[in-house]
Amino acid sequence: MNKNKIFEKFEGFFIEDLKLNQEATLTKTITKNDINTFADVTGDHNPVHMDEEYAKKTIFKKRIAHGFLSASLISTVIANKLPGPGSIYLRQNLKFLAPVFIGDLLTVKVKVISLQIERKRVTLLTECFKSEKKILTGEAEILVESKKNR
Amino acid sequence: MNKNKIFEKFEGFFIEDLKLNQEATLTKTITKNDINTFADVTGDHNPVHMDEEYAKKTIFKKRIAHGFLSASLISTVIANKLPGPGSIYLRQNLKFLAPVFIGDLLTVKVKVISLQIERKRVTLLTECFKSEKKILTGEAEILVESKKNR
Repeated sequence: MNKNKIFEKFEGFFIEDLKLNQEATLTKTITKNDINTFADVTGDHNPVHMDEEYAKKTIFKKRIAHGFLSASLISTVIANKLPGPGSIYLRQNLKFLAPVFIGDLLTVKVKVISLQIERKRVTLLTECFKSEKKILTGEAEILVESKKNR
Repeated sequence: MNKNKIFEKFEGFFIEDLKLNQEATLTKTITKNDINTFADVTGDHNPVHMDEEYAKKTIFKKRIAHGFLSASLISTVIANKLPGPGSIYLRQNLKFLAPVFIGDLLTVKVKVISLQIERKRVTLLTECFKSEKKILTGEAEILVESKKNR
């Protein structure tokens, strides 16, 4: 799949095209390889993420994914889907609610909860779930292109 | 280097051992490989991160690192150094101030700005700089082990 081809067709939403309650989602199963790769790129080889034997002795009982791996998927939905390419990340807050384990299927949901058309800003409710359980919540503020600047 | 060996020696600070204004830092040069790896693990192959020709036409003029790549380094300092292994991430807020490019040397600083010993909580000021320029700021709230539970 040629990813650039996709982006040539979809340049993301303009601020004028966004609607309150508009949503986008992404699902991803967290693998052992994801955790190992994330550890390598961030330098966080904490044994609670890397070492099954160590993790058994923690309150989590098994290896957990880095909280920022789940959080980064929020950024992915925003960058790829809503508002999509061209949007600029201004702020994000994150509240971590529960651990994520190897094999967990995550669903990341972002929803438009506030629009400031003149300031070209959108606020999104950003949530991650495993099954029905919410594991991460927060809000993002994004600067979005306007048709007026085209 | 045996990373687990390090963690056997250093289990992180107890809440009782933390001091106001205590600091820890990490430095890392952001490479093309870091951006490509981060794109693969998160699924964010947005061309502003991946495609030099596309990026030239954006306000950034060249490929930028994912904001969450820099943000994840905050998590790394917290997990590895202050408070270190055993600490549990509760909250993080992030304000993105400037783009990060390939080759930029980032310095991530975390500093204790509030302590609640009884609640086992520490609040950290979390900042990323490239040279003297602040590119990311925010605060983290972390649950830290107490000696009383040992």
